[in-house]
Amino acid sequence: MKSLTLTAALFLGVSVFGHEGTPNPDSVFIRKIYDEALEKGQAYDNLRTLCKDIGARVTGSSEAEMAVKWGEKLLKSYQFDEVYLQEIEVPHWERGTKETCWIENESGEVKKLSVLALGGSVGTGGLIEGEVVVFNSLEELKAADKALVKNKIVFLNRPFDQKLLQMFKAYGACANQRHSGPNEGGKLGAKAVVIRSLASSTDEHAHTGSTHYDADVDSIPGAAISTVDADVLSAWLQKGKVTLKLEMDCRIYPNVKSHNVIAEMKGNKDNKIITFGGHLDSWDVGEGAHDDGAGIVHSIEALRILKQLGYKPNHTLRCVLFMNEENGNFGGKSYAKIAHDKGEEHICALESDRGGFLPIGFDIQGTDEQVSIVQTYASMLKGFELYNFQKGYSGVDIRPLTEYYPEMIQLGMSISSQRYFDYHHSEADVFENVNKRELHLGAGAFAALIYLMDKTI
Amino acid sequence: MKSLTLTAALFLGVSVFGHEGTPNPDSVFIRKIYDEALEKGQAYDNLRTLCKDIGARVTGSSEAEMAVKWGEKLLKSYQFDEVYLQEIEVPHWERGTKETCWIENESGEVKKLSVLALGGSVGTGGLIEGEVVVFNSLEELKAADKALVKNKIVFLNRPFDQKLLQMFKAYGACANQRHSGPNEGGKLGAKAVVIRSLASSTDEHAHTGSTHYDADVDSIPGAAISTVDADVLSAWLQKGKVTLKLEMDCRIYPNVKSHNVIAEMKGNKDNKIITFGGHLDSWDVGEGAHDDGAGIVHSIEALRILKQLGYKPNHTLRCVLFMNEENGNFGGKSYAKIAHDKGEEHICALESDRGGFLPIGFDIQGTDEQVSIVQTYASMLKGFELYNFQKGYSGVDIRPLTEYYPEMIQLGMSISSQRYFDYHHSEADVFENVNKRELHLGAGAFAALIYLMDKTI
Repeated sequence: MKSLTLTAALFLGVSVFGHEGTPNPDSVFIRKIYDEALEKGQAYDNLRTLCKDIGARVTGSSEAEMAVKWGEKLLKSYQFDEVYLQEIEVPHWERGTKETCWIENESGEVKKLSVLALGGSVGTGGLIEGEVVVFNSLEELKAADKALVKNKIVFLNRPFDQKLLQMFKAYGACANQRHSGPNEGGKLGAKAVVIRSLASSTDEHAHTGSTHYDADVDSIPGAAISTVDADVLSAWLQKGKVTLKLEMDCRIYPNVKSHNVIAEMKGNKDNKIITFGGHLDSWDVGEGAHDDGAGIVHSIEALRILKQLGYKPNHTLRCVLFMNEENGNFGGKSYAKIAHDKGEEHICALESDRGGFLPIGFDIQGTDEQVSIVQTYASMLKGFELYNFQKGYSGVDIRPLTEYYPEMIQLGMSISSQRYFDYHHSEADVFENVNKRELHLGAGAFAALIYLMDKTI
Repeated sequence: MKSLTLTAALFLGVSVFGHEGTPNPDSVFIRKIYDEALEKGQAYDNLRTLCKDIGARVTGSSEAEMAVKWGEKLLKSYQFDEVYLQEIEVPHWERGTKETCWIENESGEVKKLSVLALGGSVGTGGLIEGEVVVFNSLEELKAADKALVKNKIVFLNRPFDQKLLQMFKAYGACANQRHSGPNEGGKLGAKAVVIRSLASSTDEHAHTGSTHYDADVDSIPGAAISTVDADVLSAWLQKGKVTLKLEMDCRIYPNVKSHNVIAEMKGNKDNKIITFGGHLDSWDVGEGAHDDGAGIVHSIEALRILKQLGYKPNHTLRCVLFMNEENGNFGGKSYAKIAHDKGEEHICALESDRGGFLPIGFDIQGTDEQVSIVQTYASMLKGFELYNFQKGYSGVDIRPLTEYYPEMIQLGMSISSQRYFDYHHSEADVFENVNKRELHLGAGAFAALIYLMDKTI
């Protein structure tokens, strides 16, 4: 693989800024990309059909399989050079139908809570109940005396740190209570673990998401309650003993077959591959509009726009609708392994998985030199309200590629995070909460960076 | 007035960047402002009461007078140095109760349209009807032959240019069809003028806003129909003749008394004044949540935060809740004249009137030198996602001050404009469409700039 050199960037730099008075061809082309995205964009209409005709599409569900058909059909309609399915194995977990949570205090007051089983959780096997013991973080739980936790129902109540500017950082700081809470509770003999939803807002929705169990730990049920209900439970606990009753009949089934959905425009110059995508699966509540329907339609739209404008790529541009990001990332891991096994040459990957809100730039996962190169684009993209080009994390789906292709550059589209966790993994993640212009600006930004990367490397 | 010099800015520059390893006091203070805004902010709760307990508050209505009481009471509760009302005269227009619009084609098909009288429009005096003649811009109408327009109902159908990044520019390009459409139609003998709503989205809401009549022109009714209905009407017109029926009983009453609501923290150093504010009035549909409830609570919150943090300002910090921005700007004009007549010394003004969305920076109305000075803040504010510091327009309410104080610097808070015109002047401009974190980031940004301006000038 030809490594991305600063010389190449400086060359692009010249081409970017142009001579005084001469329209710069890259700037002109990027303006055309945005014109197409904003004036004739199809991302919003495509997202509507994904959300309304398919809906929530958790891995292993019939909705997930219909989403594969939806993606294949849509990509074929655009007549790209190739459209195909890549078979993969994925987990299969189902929520079931019963999902009830009550609290009761010593005076016999009762209250029903808004609850969702965590993805991957075991069921309760009927109604269970136990005294609630609260911890303000996973670390507190891990440090707790087993006697305090045994046979209790653990409540993990760490809220988002509202002082942070980046809500992904606030999420990251709390996410271990969801991911590892039931596992750690199980180690200490708890009956179940209930967490405060990982949400930036204080509202009535419970927010689900994946949890995991170590093989040597007894699996106990894990659930999330809404932030409003977490505040109520917390207030009740300050006044005395609280009993929690929980019933969930979610269960884990054997793995099943599913597919990544792939479309390509072939390169003029070589067969080196630039991968870009989002994930087609979602959780099983809401419609997966922001997570990650937005990334799916950004990706499809980027390829459509480049084709529509008659662009002839240097390298193969490969749009991937990854299956199973949410619970296991089997799609991303399999994609990377298959690429390696086939001897493909991968030089760059881009991901959109932070919602359909206002794009603000790109996080760059690569060497300092690679970061500098992308930063040379900044002045050209400022007019499109993109200003944030910094070293950072790319994305869950494309990350496994770096195991096989350590020299490749990866970019994660950076999107304003202020509203994302109001909707994330909840019934509120629906099409109506996506703004058309913000979504289409994301498609424009994604296409522009794919174009620039294809030209530069 | 001491003019704002580059020397002062460079001095601040040193203080901003600090010596290596030394915490910079300005950065530390701005971080405290944001902590207060994001963790203990009251702007969102204040906006809820303004929207839900008062509601829409067009100038001259009892709601506008109740909003004055609301503002005065709230400001007094924060125990600022002074809180007082400033009496002004304002227009009084009422929508009335009847507002109906139908179209009918040559086959007798009929359709009811979503319609709102333009603010300041005369009524129809019963049901009127006429053949529709369409123009794609005000300029086309002005150039039209009188014979083509006389006794017709003019339909002005210029849409937003979606290719633009700044939706305020798209609005600006279309706004003359609302502001001057009925006046120009009147000159040519039209019966009424109906415009395509000034909206970025294609939806079912009509969006109102002010229109004006020259004294020597016959006043004819003006109304806005939803963008969806504008598309329907446009399609019908392509197939043949369309008749439009319109009934509105809106009317103009004599001017009434109202008030700007003012709160102050007195300066330690002198009596020079820094004014900041938004407008308390709104249109009479929706709840005026983004326009400009957001600016009102940004302004109140900025003063509250500075007081809460124990800040002792150099100059007098004056928070103004302006009345009557929407139809006449009597509040802003009167405020400036009274300031001048009293011999007050005004050195700076800031305005928030672009909604409660994500703040992205400040537009600076001033000399190149003044712009450069504000730009020296950029590196300190980058961590708060503020990046846009450029020469531009300040705001309608504070603009009249520059007539009397031409050397003053003015700043308009720059806010992402992508969603603003989905809600603007329509029934959709309600509290539920405001995001708490975005609103509180706006309060933080506004307070930070007031602090920096107070320190610098």
